[in-house]
Amino acid sequence: MGRVNEVMQRALASSVPLIPELGTHLMVAGGKRLRPMLTLAASHMCGAPLEDAAQLAACVEFIHAATLLHDDVIDESLLRRGRPTANAVWGNKASVLVGDFLFARAFELMVAQGSLEVLALLSATSVRLSEGEVLQLSMTGDLSVTRQGCVDIMSAKTAPLFEAATGVAGILAGVDTVQKQGLLTYGRALGVCFQIIDDILDYQGGDASFGKAVGGDLLERKVTLPVVLAYEKGSTSEQQFWRDVYDAGADQKEHLPKVLSLLSKYNAFDEAHRIAKGYGQEALGALSVFQDSPAKAALEETVHFSLLRQN
Amino acid sequence: MGRVNEVMQRALASSVPLIPELGTHLMVAGGKRLRPMLTLAASHMCGAPLEDAAQLAACVEFIHAATLLHDDVIDESLLRRGRPTANAVWGNKASVLVGDFLFARAFELMVAQGSLEVLALLSATSVRLSEGEVLQLSMTGDLSVTRQGCVDIMSAKTAPLFEAATGVAGILAGVDTVQKQGLLTYGRALGVCFQIIDDILDYQGGDASFGKAVGGDLLERKVTLPVVLAYEKGSTSEQQFWRDVYDAGADQKEHLPKVLSLLSKYNAFDEAHRIAKGYGQEALGALSVFQDSPAKAALEETVHFSLLRQN
Repeated sequence: MGRVNEVMQRALASSVPLIPELGTHLMVAGGKRLRPMLTLAASHMCGAPLEDAAQLAACVEFIHAATLLHDDVIDESLLRRGRPTANAVWGNKASVLVGDFLFARAFELMVAQGSLEVLALLSATSVRLSEGEVLQLSMTGDLSVTRQGCVDIMSAKTAPLFEAATGVAGILAGVDTVQKQGLLTYGRALGVCFQIIDDILDYQGGDASFGKAVGGDLLERKVTLPVVLAYEKGSTSEQQFWRDVYDAGADQKEHLPKVLSLLSKYNAFDEAHRIAKGYGQEALGALSVFQDSPAKAALEETVHFSLLRQN
Repeated sequence: MGRVNEVMQRALASSVPLIPELGTHLMVAGGKRLRPMLTLAASHMCGAPLEDAAQLAACVEFIHAATLLHDDVIDESLLRRGRPTANAVWGNKASVLVGDFLFARAFELMVAQGSLEVLALLSATSVRLSEGEVLQLSMTGDLSVTRQGCVDIMSAKTAPLFEAATGVAGILAGVDTVQKQGLLTYGRALGVCFQIIDDILDYQGGDASFGKAVGGDLLERKVTLPVVLAYEKGSTSEQQFWRDVYDAGADQKEHLPKVLSLLSKYNAFDEAHRIAKGYGQEALGALSVFQDSPAKAALEETVHFSLLRQN
């Protein structure tokens, strides 16, 4: 990871000072660095060249960072990981543009690495990420979504980059089709699992532990899995309450206590966690085509970590 | 160009309806389609395979469209080419995300075409475009810029994509280094020329002819070449006026009449036009390494058109 950080630091260089300034703010805030670690662990497991893996891990993290910058503009978020967001400090304009810079720079790094197969995977991934975000945007406040539809939408913005993060390792190592598929399945299933836990924690974490306000998804009228599960089981009057809450004109914040009590009444968090665990199992199963190794154990550990994490 | 439109139309397809909807709005609004035409004309001139040229012309236009979407969000523009902007119709969120989609799709199309040299040129170009935009943003309201600095800043967001639009043709055709350089120089000089004329027309066009309000750059506190030229020659009190006008707290609109009269008093438009003409000459000169042909004549004509255009 030290090498990945070096690559990212160097790739943030620009004659325009605001770019490294804003980029460093984002990188220092850091977060879990989960995606580049997945690329490195999967590369270790498959025996891919590690310098190439570090380059591509940095690309994956840059694409992730670009989507975070644009997300925070879109959601008008003021806090991320307990620190002020870039848009809160430098404004929306700078966040949109530096997001564009990071995205373009990621492609420049990929081209330097030189694999058209990697470029194909990561450009297709970027298309899917933006489609996932637009899909989520068009479904704002829509309670008619099924639980499977909800999982699909919420994961569309997350799972593709997890899938690509492990998928590139298989390309670098030149593994066979079965193992390539195993890496993609592992990443996708882990991504869905991760996103469901995120959606649970959005209602459980506090400012201190999660670095953002409780119920952020509610305020943005994002209908996530716990809500769909409670809505499904709700009485007629409770369903009417949910529809009122997600109305564009409603004051969502005011309704947070009742929202939390309904989620709890119908065990929506436990049920969502059970669904996440199913995806976690799928991720673990996908690794069965690889021999045991410390790197494989690290990928397995990541699944358990994702299910147990509290922030 | 019919083929380019087909490629673009197909590439806008998505399972998320908002994407083709917003994309088509943008494409129907159309504009000059100058960049893809440059790619096609340069490809004709060099004997590049035309199907590949059409694919890459579409990529160039998609990158351009993505930057327009993000620009309009950043500038909070309500009109472009006489029609409501996408952000005015669908909101800023959709515009940011569909911009991201177009950018990612452009890279997907390039990967399908398969030239790493093209990918290198267009990814480096995308980095430079975003740097140019951030640079312009950091120089908002700054009257200390020199005339050369001003040309550099204003062109940083425009010239690289013109340069790449003609540059890719040379790569596709496999021309020698001298001709490759000629294509890049032509594109870059034409891009600077085009941007200067844009900056002049911003103060001269009206709602009807230019599709946006007169003095838009003034309202956004963008210091463009005509203003720098008038500021340079202004008296002490006029320079103070300019500094007051570009102050963040000032009501720029109110000062538009005096701004226009000062620009006229110091022949700022004629002088800027003379500078643009110099870049036009440079562009024409760069074509001297190519034999005469109808395609070359079209590229020459584009320079004259850029200098004479009224919108």
